[in-house]
Amino acid sequence: MDEKIIETVEKYKGRIITVKEYRVVLINGKEAKREVVHHPGAVAILPVLEDGSVFFVKQYRLPAQKVLLEIPAGKLDYGEKPEECAYRELEEEIGYVPGKLKLVHTFYPSPGISDEVLYLFEASDLKRTKENPDEDEFLELVILSKDEVKRYLFENKFEDSKTLIGVYYYLYSRRS
Amino acid sequence: MDEKIIETVEKYKGRIITVKEYRVVLINGKEAKREVVHHPGAVAILPVLEDGSVFFVKQYRLPAQKVLLEIPAGKLDYGEKPEECAYRELEEEIGYVPGKLKLVHTFYPSPGISDEVLYLFEASDLKRTKENPDEDEFLELVILSKDEVKRYLFENKFEDSKTLIGVYYYLYSRRS
Repeated sequence: MDEKIIETVEKYKGRIITVKEYRVVLINGKEAKREVVHHPGAVAILPVLEDGSVFFVKQYRLPAQKVLLEIPAGKLDYGEKPEECAYRELEEEIGYVPGKLKLVHTFYPSPGISDEVLYLFEASDLKRTKENPDEDEFLELVILSKDEVKRYLFENKFEDSKTLIGVYYYLYSRRS
Repeated sequence: MDEKIIETVEKYKGRIITVKEYRVVLINGKEAKREVVHHPGAVAILPVLEDGSVFFVKQYRLPAQKVLLEIPAGKLDYGEKPEECAYRELEEEIGYVPGKLKLVHTFYPSPGISDEVLYLFEASDLKRTKENPDEDEFLELVILSKDEVKRYLFENKFEDSKTLIGVYYYLYSRRS
């Protein structure tokens, strides 16, 4: 079922992404062109407090041209392990470090066009280490109870893939 | 909380995506650069049969360099309404048309880097119209029962965002 790559041309190299065009041979022998956005990958963290409530961050996203309510997340640095990145990003964004990190899902946000992989962790046993998280990121922290998470999901207030997956995982694994 | 765009430069124009670099002014008055992948948007369809089982498609994804098990999906044509696209893509990919389409979630797969919006529909009252779906797409159809969907989720066999969200929605809304 594979496609065989016969030519690769780099078309754009930015700070985060690289775009390449591939000429491929399909299963039926025909040729086709594919454009692929190469991305270093990222982590997202569902931070659950002892009482079961969840930390979110509000952040302006230029591609969406609006403020989104998301679970904390960040890009992987070169050579960085996803667990290390999750630990670092959580402290940077909400000022807590996780006592426990559990890998919940590994997925491609947009597999038709990009090789970006997202590692989604559940973080618990949270310990506060900073009074104020990094102010350069312009994040607003929001803590929601389980009932609020449910209501927000129903009202379509979660608008990105990692947050929807994290929230569904959270609600489904606590559905009792 | 917004970022003000002061310069836009188009860096790459492909068949599907366009990449632009933006110079922006942040809330604190500092300047920053953003690279954004512009994408026409897409639909994904969770096709549920009368007995509650779900249609999936297996498809080779060059960016992931492997075959993924996904719910049916496709890019929006220019000016096309998401409902029309969902109707068309479902027939092309599995050979059924939906009697009923319900918009479940609208989300950004990767909001840090791309403006791609994905419209996720639940399709029901399915009617078969084609013996064999388009053979140019090299898809393999897979039908899973609710128990199989649950097991596959647990075994991490769903590896892309739209499928995970569709599957969680399906399981959570039928959790009884």
